[in-house]
Amino acid sequence: MRPLAQHTLLEFYDCNPACLKHSKPVKKLLCDSVQRGGGTIVKAVFHNFSPHGVSGVVVITESHVTIHTWPEYGYAAVDIFSCGEKLDHKTIRAHLQRALSARKVSGQSFRRGFPNKNIRGAVPVRRSVRSPGFRRSTTPYANKHPSR
Amino acid sequence: MRPLAQHTLLEFYDCNPACLKHSKPVKKLLCDSVQRGGGTIVKAVFHNFSPHGVSGVVVITESHVTIHTWPEYGYAAVDIFSCGEKLDHKTIRAHLQRALSARKVSGQSFRRGFPNKNIRGAVPVRRSVRSPGFRRSTTPYANKHPSR
Repeated sequence: MRPLAQHTLLEFYDCNPACLKHSKPVKKLLCDSVQRGGGTIVKAVFHNFSPHGVSGVVVITESHVTIHTWPEYGYAAVDIFSCGEKLDHKTIRAHLQRALSARKVSGQSFRRGFPNKNIRGAVPVRRSVRSPGFRRSTTPYANKHPSR
Repeated sequence: MRPLAQHTLLEFYDCNPACLKHSKPVKKLLCDSVQRGGGTIVKAVFHNFSPHGVSGVVVITESHVTIHTWPEYGYAAVDIFSCGEKLDHKTIRAHLQRALSARKVSGQSFRRGFPNKNIRGAVPVRRSVRSPGFRRSTTPYANKHPSR
């Protein structure tokens, strides 16, 4: 059984701090990125911290994308969680990296949800490189959620 | 330098499917859990899928908690991301486990955001057991975000 969802944790370092300070441009950026990645936005909620810094969530029909920024460190943490094959995590990452002028980016992907297997935790995708077929499949989430 | 945030990925298996079907009770449950864990809710956004299944996000001043449910598999994926020491991830996990009647639960925690260190990815907390001081500190996030 294939996993129900894929989750990517992204760390953007050495960003342009000006890009991370206020919720309005961060919201626009994240929504643009989600749309470029093929996501369908249901709702976007962003919160501006005082004096600066943003927490934002974009709920999409494919699940969610979140961002938390620390302008004082030039750092942003982004999560992409999707339960369909439609959302392109790499496109979102690339767009954010360009727009934030992030000089260093790292990402880790996990497969989540194996209800009929004896796998309990989130499984790092790096392990699955050894599992033939995971990366090459055109339908990476075979057990598509009927409702998403 | 201590990490800027902690992120816990939780998998709830063999839940009572009835608890996972509709957004209203799932929203109430997640908000209750966040409040029991000491979180301050900014906004909650939940989306009901047809015929069933829920995606929900609770934005909190400490960052976010999300849930995605698959009633047909008795499975829920929950994420807790917090950038302060106030939010108690374990309390949230325990409350959700009880309320969902989840027979199997697994969790993985990561430390995220080390702007001044040569650490790039999210770091599993299990590794940090070897790093004296991480777990015993009463201020696990030394570089507290000034605005959260």
